[in-house]
Amino acid sequence: MSPFPSAADSCLEAQGPREAMARRFAQVRAHSLALAEPLSAEDQCIQSMPDASPTKWHLAHGSWFFEAVVLRAHVPDYRPFDERFFYLFNSYYEALGPRHPRPLRGLLTRPPLAQVLAYRAHVDAAVQSFITRGGEPMWQQALPLLTLGLQHEQQHQELMLTDILHALSCNPILPAYAQPALASALRLAPTVVPPLRWLAGPAGTVQIGHDGGGFAFDNETPRHSVLLSPYCMADRLVNCGEYLQFIEDGGYRRPELWLSDGWAAVQANGWSCPPYWLAPDDVRAPARHWQVFGLQGVRALDASAPVSQVSFYEAAAYAEWAGARLPTEFEWEAACAVPGIAQMTGHLWQWTRSSYDPYPGFRPLAGAVGEYNGKFMVGQLVLRGSSSATPAGHARPSYRNFFPPGARWQFSGIRLAKDA
Amino acid sequence: MSPFPSAADSCLEAQGPREAMARRFAQVRAHSLALAEPLSAEDQCIQSMPDASPTKWHLAHGSWFFEAVVLRAHVPDYRPFDERFFYLFNSYYEALGPRHPRPLRGLLTRPPLAQVLAYRAHVDAAVQSFITRGGEPMWQQALPLLTLGLQHEQQHQELMLTDILHALSCNPILPAYAQPALASALRLAPTVVPPLRWLAGPAGTVQIGHDGGGFAFDNETPRHSVLLSPYCMADRLVNCGEYLQFIEDGGYRRPELWLSDGWAAVQANGWSCPPYWLAPDDVRAPARHWQVFGLQGVRALDASAPVSQVSFYEAAAYAEWAGARLPTEFEWEAACAVPGIAQMTGHLWQWTRSSYDPYPGFRPLAGAVGEYNGKFMVGQLVLRGSSSATPAGHARPSYRNFFPPGARWQFSGIRLAKDA
Amino acid sequence: MSPFPSAADSCLEAQGPREAMARRFAQVRAHSLALAEPLSAEDQCIQSMPDASPTKWHLAHGSWFFEAVVLRAHVPDYRPFDERFFYLFNSYYEALGPRHPRPLRGLLTRPPLAQVLAYRAHVDAAVQSFITRGGEPMWQQALPLLTLGLQHEQQHQELMLTDILHALSCNPILPAYAQPALASALRLAPTVVPPLRWLAGPAGTVQIGHDGGGFAFDNETPRHSVLLSPYCMADRLVNCGEYLQFIEDGGYRRPELWLSDGWAAVQANGWSCPPYWLAPDDVRAPARHWQVFGLQGVRALDASAPVSQVSFYEAAAYAEWAGARLPTEFEWEAACAVPGIAQMTGHLWQWTRSSYDPYPGFRPLAGAVGEYNGKFMVGQLVLRGSSSATPAGHARPSYRNFFPPGARWQFSGIRLAKDA
Amino acid sequence: MSPFPSAADSCLEAQGPREAMARRFAQVRAHSLALAEPLSAEDQCIQSMPDASPTKWHLAHGSWFFEAVVLRAHVPDYRPFDERFFYLFNSYYEALGPRHPRPLRGLLTRPPLAQVLAYRAHVDAAVQSFITRGGEPMWQQALPLLTLGLQHEQQHQELMLTDILHALSCNPILPAYAQPALASALRLAPTVVPPLRWLAGPAGTVQIGHDGGGFAFDNETPRHSVLLSPYCMADRLVNCGEYLQFIEDGGYRRPELWLSDGWAAVQANGWSCPPYWLAPDDVRAPARHWQVFGLQGVRALDASAPVSQVSFYEAAAYAEWAGARLPTEFEWEAACAVPGIAQMTGHLWQWTRSSYDPYPGFRPLAGAVGEYNGKFMVGQLVLRGSSSATPAGHARPSYRNFFPPGARWQFSGIRLAKDA
Repeated sequence: MSPFPSAADSCLEAQGPREAMARRFAQVRAHSLALAEPLSAEDQCIQSMPDASPTKWHLAHGSWFFEAVVLRAHVPDYRPFDERFFYLFNSYYEALGPRHPRPLRGLLTRPPLAQVLAYRAHVDAAVQSFITRGGEPMWQQALPLLTLGLQHEQQHQELMLTDILHALSCNPILPAYAQPALASALRLAPTVVPPLRWLAGPAGTVQIGHDGGGFAFDNETPRHSVLLSPYCMADRLVNCGEYLQFIEDGGYRRPELWLSDGWAAVQANGWSCPPYWLAPDDVRAPARHWQVFGLQGVRALDASAPVSQVSFYEAAAYAEWAGARLPTEFEWEAACAVPGIAQMTGHLWQWTRSSYDPYPGFRPLAGAVGEYNGKFMVGQLVLRGSSSATPAGHARPSYRNFFPPGARWQFSGIRLAKDA
Repeated sequence: MSPFPSAADSCLEAQGPREAMARRFAQVRAHSLALAEPLSAEDQCIQSMPDASPTKWHLAHGSWFFEAVVLRAHVPDYRPFDERFFYLFNSYYEALGPRHPRPLRGLLTRPPLAQVLAYRAHVDAAVQSFITRGGEPMWQQALPLLTLGLQHEQQHQELMLTDILHALSCNPILPAYAQPALASALRLAPTVVPPLRWLAGPAGTVQIGHDGGGFAFDNETPRHSVLLSPYCMADRLVNCGEYLQFIEDGGYRRPELWLSDGWAAVQANGWSCPPYWLAPDDVRAPARHWQVFGLQGVRALDASAPVSQVSFYEAAAYAEWAGARLPTEFEWEAACAVPGIAQMTGHLWQWTRSSYDPYPGFRPLAGAVGEYNGKFMVGQLVLRGSSSATPAGHARPSYRNFFPPGARWQFSGIRLAKDA
Repeated sequence: MSPFPSAADSCLEAQGPREAMARRFAQVRAHSLALAEPLSAEDQCIQSMPDASPTKWHLAHGSWFFEAVVLRAHVPDYRPFDERFFYLFNSYYEALGPRHPRPLRGLLTRPPLAQVLAYRAHVDAAVQSFITRGGEPMWQQALPLLTLGLQHEQQHQELMLTDILHALSCNPILPAYAQPALASALRLAPTVVPPLRWLAGPAGTVQIGHDGGGFAFDNETPRHSVLLSPYCMADRLVNCGEYLQFIEDGGYRRPELWLSDGWAAVQANGWSCPPYWLAPDDVRAPARHWQVFGLQGVRALDASAPVSQVSFYEAAAYAEWAGARLPTEFEWEAACAVPGIAQMTGHLWQWTRSSYDPYPGFRPLAGAVGEYNGKFMVGQLVLRGSSSATPAGHARPSYRNFFPPGARWQFSGIRLAKDA
Repeated sequence: MSPFPSAADSCLEAQGPREAMARRFAQVRAHSLALAEPLSAEDQCIQSMPDASPTKWHLAHGSWFFEAVVLRAHVPDYRPFDERFFYLFNSYYEALGPRHPRPLRGLLTRPPLAQVLAYRAHVDAAVQSFITRGGEPMWQQALPLLTLGLQHEQQHQELMLTDILHALSCNPILPAYAQPALASALRLAPTVVPPLRWLAGPAGTVQIGHDGGGFAFDNETPRHSVLLSPYCMADRLVNCGEYLQFIEDGGYRRPELWLSDGWAAVQANGWSCPPYWLAPDDVRAPARHWQVFGLQGVRALDASAPVSQVSFYEAAAYAEWAGARLPTEFEWEAACAVPGIAQMTGHLWQWTRSSYDPYPGFRPLAGAVGEYNGKFMVGQLVLRGSSSATPAGHARPSYRNFFPPGARWQFSGIRLAKDA
């Protein structure tokens, strides 16, 4: 079965496009609220570092995007909920004017959460009205932007989880985002970890980039040919048991395993394990074994679970230690079609050995949304796949996620590759 | 009439000491909650800079003090509300163990506000029970610590206001802490500002420090003699109208008016007016005239109101510009008794030209509370008086408040002095 | 005529390999001293930023490399000049032990310059003795390391010039490294700048990487095939006259032209022109026109000279403004063979739109020299070509230079490309 | 015998004032050159931290002072040596225009040392000419400024030694400023350290400040009365043997001994001993015992030598540990007259428990030299006495030296006091 189901999309297309969009809009927007539901207004307000944003800000910014890009531009009689929000909840769109400084997002106790929810409702109503009643020319113009807005909302849904997890991890009492389900308790029985297998990937000339069906971001285009030398891919992600061996073998103390910038990060920040791991003597939750903090709070380290929240530096050092390397983003994309390959999506984003450079012939979208992807194409590494925090239906083989090499708060893991 | 009323204290002494303490404890503790009342849980959670603390943290820390210093030490069967709070809400007492890092106080969304309020109720009940039923020897030992705890609570009441005002000032929509009362609207009628008068202060040998009646902090003792040269004190504080002249005369652009560190602060931070002043072209609230942000939101600059939230550097530069100087803390204290002197308390703390050094023969209190004042006696300046945010009955002539010279978020103003 | 002459190498091979190496070693090492010759001991001692090194340090480090990699490992009876130098002059080789912190290189007034020169003479003598009399097996082992050492020395020759130029640029009197020759004064006559022409580059499958003849660094290997879409290359570099138009058109004030990190750099550092340009009102050397500081001091801006010392961010913004883009490193390498293309080497290094990633199948060299290139393969951009500061014979089409995108003190310029 | 000999001054007054000044000027200026004599041009160029300055800069700045304050203002036909030096060598005089940024003083390889020496000779000749032939009114005006200039030169003589010592301490080979004399080697025989004795100081009303005879800085005036409570002073400085006991008793690990800012400095900087002490396992110079780096290089710790280069924070922590306190600057000044008190001058500056506040009635000098002392009167602590690096004749009982509490590169030590 393909790891990239398109059933939902197919289903939508059986309806008229306006009905399909109305339903999809409602579904996606509702999911954001569902993610925020376990959190108090206090939880939703704070910002634990400049790279992360408050839950409430994410909720507002998703609405801002529809307001700024769809409603203001395509709905002549649209009345903004609050003019000040145009400034407060802009993220980084220079073409749309100045904005509240990113590091200060956590100081916005006002508007209060209730008002942000009212803002969402206001925008939802206006968008749904436009979907239903907007004139045809405007509708045709706005449709790609509505679609983009929903993809954008979904990206922030994942960030809501990564960011709140980081915030909670800064609290010494390590509170859980959500209570563990009973079922998960049963998982404590030791898992049998299958040995990692190497699968040959497609080599020679391969087609890379979005193939034209369904939505894709501009950075996945144009589709083009790439030459690949023979290579093998690991059939699954590196797991916590394997990563623990790396640690116990002195992985964080051996400079020869690390890229120069990575070793500098290890030393400057005192890294000795992934950021949410608790060593047995951790004062916050003493135990006889390693533990891992996650959305369900502190739990015993599960050797069979993929290691998560590692930086590119750690991924590359682990690969060096394991006598392998990270795959390029092209190898990763080509390997999606290899029978037997597992954990490509739905578990963890996977660091590749590819810098986030433009594809040959890349052109950003026109207008303000041209700032969406292209202007970040330097200093970042590509991650492929998707994670357990990625909304259903949001992933595809050509998807290019990207973060700086030192980022350690995403659901990011390690897949190995090697030359054949 | 003395600016330092002791009526409340006298009243208390008419009761038995336990009844008096029970009543006073209830009053002081209730006032903290009243101050937090206009604020949402979101408002109470955030921290706008390392020097400021969240409202919720202040509420918890006041209880922590009673728990750490009174209940744990003097009530054998006391059961702490939550052992983790001993770590979370310690401020700076090294003798009481490690503590949550100060700059991260704003990340404590958990415990939620409701739980902190429950913590307060738990501590209140335990303290009241101890006041009523504690054995006499323990009671005698604990009485000075209970008294200190209430003074401590009052200090944090003022900080709750200064800190939340700073947090709200970081929000570009500049929300008000409390709605302005109708009465205050009437103040908009232009005030006649009386010309500043110079009053001769007591010179020669004067007695400085607490005289032994009622409560005082250790840093106000021992009382001792100081020799003063003849001097004059301004009969009132510098007001906003006067300070505006300083600005318009280039006060923030003339290095010759500033201490070296002050001029460096002007340049490094781009200071051009007090921090809560809005120039006419301020994008946050455009107007034809200067405005000032305060607890009641943005209001037109009132020329007759004392200028507030200025640093020592600004106070000293203003004095230089005005051809005067700041008083020493000894001059200030001696001048309390001068007939006609006004605004000594209840308006703004007043920067003095005295560094915060120990009095001759100073000894800190014994035990952990010895860290209360003494260890901060370097690098700070003394402020005298009290402010509109100071709880009633908390001020006295010998009171020594202190902040670093660049601090700009206190209710701190300027009183001039000069050699006679 | 090829821009990459190999005459010198051919010449060498006519001799015996030991004689050839002895002569080449002497030539290369002598050139380092010649570059330092115009500088005083004071000039040679200072370090103007952590990324730059003192001239004296470069002189010592080149010798350290031969000592650490050749002499200590291959000459049994070699006696180091001073054991402490092994620590003082290691640059970044973790495998060779701890080292003096890079930002403190400018504090090494001792050893004095004279002693560093004696160190060079000591190492030179030992290496020449080894070249002449070393046993054959050792000689065979050491030969690639000697060759690498000379390439390394040449790289530092270029850095000596870039680094001292930066140091001199920090001096408000802007002293010249060397007096301008009389001939250069004649250049002041306005140059006719030929219009830029676009040349089609080789597309389809091209071979990239070192072809096996002569020396190459490990990062140029293995040679492999790359698919290129049709593209055009500018036949020359962007010149100062063109770049001035970019400035005058608001290039440094228009965020839409910049990558996100680039725009952040513009704002954080106040960039408004290349770092060594002096606006007409510059207080250091007032003039009626723009001027440029260089190795020969301050001179009038020459509109026909290639713009230099720009960062990747500026190069990319300029290309955006010009409606073009930067070439990939593969396009650049393939275009070397295009008839009529000029200024590929000997003028300025040229920023490419390629991040510095490993080639497929890349393997670092064995041993300590494995740290030479591979560990820097993240967060940097590739530059191709060579500059006027590059020693003769050091360039080749497959050469991969690399610097972080914000680096502005190299002889780095801009060549444009565009899709065909 | 008084620790403050005035013989030299008396001698001078036997001559005519111009002859006396000419001789004194020559002597003082020559001493600066003598201090620089053991240093190479490289040594004289570097700056090891923003608070320290290069030797060459000190040499130039002393001349700048005479040029800016005396020659330009009082010698109509004076021709500056180089107009650019007016900018390069201004230290902090805002009234005299902008200046080269302090942290970049170490980048001034040009003007070279030889030119700075020529600058000195030029200024010397001009000043001597003015002393001999200047018209009487100008001479009378300039005389206090010439005197101030010589005192200023002497202050920089001490800084030349403190600053170069710091620079040399940053070099891992720890070079000596000057070779130890043979005599000092004999000192290695263990010294008998006399037990510290407590001497009662003059209490009651004492006169503080300069008494009007001879030169004094403005910050020593006006002379005024201060009331002192009874106290005792240690008859000598704390020595290294005693300080080692403090270290071995965990002095740097016990927060209760430290002021809050001091403890923060200990933790932030990892302080565990005075900055120039080498623990037995120090890799720079391994030994079986503690050693101390100084102007004569690394030598065995001399238990009887006063502990030097400590910060105020360390001095205060030591005093707390010893059950004593630091003297106020008034106690120190009054105690100068106590029979039997030793090491008041000529050994180490002594931290007092007095912040550097203005004396009652203090007025800065008129003109640019008004910036000499007054503008630094906040955030610093007073040191009294003088050190072995202080030029002969420069000390007096009323002298107020001052540094921030964390400064650790001066010849600063500890004298204890206690309440009687």
